[in-house]
Amino acid sequence: MEKRIDYESPIPFYHQLKEILKANITIGEWLPGDKIPSENELKNVYQISRNTVKKALDDMVKEGLLKRIQGKGTFVAKPKLEQSLTGFYSFSKVIKQQGMEPKDVVISIEEVKADTNIAKQLKINLNEPVTALRRLRCADEEPIILETSYIPKKIVSEISNDMLKKYSLYDFMEKEAGVVVVSAKEIFEPVLVRDFESQYLGVKEGYPALMLDRIAYNTAKQPVEFCRSIVRGDRCRFYTELL
Amino acid sequence: MEKRIDYESPIPFYHQLKEILKANITIGEWLPGDKIPSENELKNVYQISRNTVKKALDDMVKEGLLKRIQGKGTFVAKPKLEQSLTGFYSFSKVIKQQGMEPKDVVISIEEVKADTNIAKQLKINLNEPVTALRRLRCADEEPIILETSYIPKKIVSEISNDMLKKYSLYDFMEKEAGVVVVSAKEIFEPVLVRDFESQYLGVKEGYPALMLDRIAYNTAKQPVEFCRSIVRGDRCRFYTELL
Repeated sequence: MEKRIDYESPIPFYHQLKEILKANITIGEWLPGDKIPSENELKNVYQISRNTVKKALDDMVKEGLLKRIQGKGTFVAKPKLEQSLTGFYSFSKVIKQQGMEPKDVVISIEEVKADTNIAKQLKINLNEPVTALRRLRCADEEPIILETSYIPKKIVSEISNDMLKKYSLYDFMEKEAGVVVVSAKEIFEPVLVRDFESQYLGVKEGYPALMLDRIAYNTAKQPVEFCRSIVRGDRCRFYTELL
Repeated sequence: MEKRIDYESPIPFYHQLKEILKANITIGEWLPGDKIPSENELKNVYQISRNTVKKALDDMVKEGLLKRIQGKGTFVAKPKLEQSLTGFYSFSKVIKQQGMEPKDVVISIEEVKADTNIAKQLKINLNEPVTALRRLRCADEEPIILETSYIPKKIVSEISNDMLKKYSLYDFMEKEAGVVVVSAKEIFEPVLVRDFESQYLGVKEGYPALMLDRIAYNTAKQPVEFCRSIVRGDRCRFYTELL
């Protein structure tokens, strides 16, 4: 913590403080899990108001760089989960590669009627029956993605919780209904976490998230699944290589 | 507007209203630029409170589906700009393909010292001189992306506004310094628009955005540019094909 606030600079103090604290994380002076100095200590070291310190820390918590634990203090967060968007990927594998334990929690499996959007994505008729499978995908017990898959009943007649304990969804679709997913299109845009999603994801409403829509196709290029995921922005980032 | 609110449903009324209004857009009953009914009209048609109507419309404005024009009413927004992340792309080309006129506004070109993150991304020393080029990229005069490129001075000694009027940045780098960009890595995560960004992008602080970091490499696989973009989430979405 050598760098100091430049009181003459036009850059706001809270922003300067963030840059200093971020650099401590980037250069590895502070490691994931480390407790950082208290607001009072930072206020004294950097000679700025407690409100300014609080604003900087609040921002960094929202960005997923720091984590507050009630009654314990503020800690350097675990690095974000990185996921490549270049090729097909499995959330479980991504989690395992990063040394964590994946876990899926089935929230609900129900038959619903395709609404306008689902019908459009799956190229089926409005109100056609689809299975809606909602799952919470976790890493080391921490919820990361709230995912809802819509699968036409005419493609896979039934999806059971028991089977999903044994197989991945795509393995199950292959074994049960002979449906092989060979390609997919993903569309994503940044959104804000909404009220009902925040309850599952354990972050506040209005936090940054990625809405990721996937349409998966079988060998005949027919859409067999439409999946909408809400991915925590404070815990994940994505990358792709351009050639 | 045939669908009605189901007053017995556990789904909040504002959410039901959003689904109804979204369906009008999806099926093309409402087209981009169309004025939608006023809050009062919607309140009467759907027999819900004005606050509920307002919450639904506010959400849809944030999501980029509707646009409010002061004193004129609420309109269906233009479709989001779609950009593939599968291969190399040019923002100008993407804009043109979608029938709009691209325009770049240079906000500033200055020499700065590489901070910890810039130095790390460009694999140069801390405090090494880099050119920081900040531009606002617009489509039909509307600001879409706030982009800051950092280019080591030792790679390209000078970047001038005049040259950027004639050439794209990469064309300029090639002509001026013989630097050919052949590959790039992009990393992105959802963030919230911050105060100073909101002033350029013309959206409110806290709106959803994508932070897109690009590191561009020359033929020798040396990083020649680090570029951080803040992309409006209410106006853009991205897609990728997985095989």
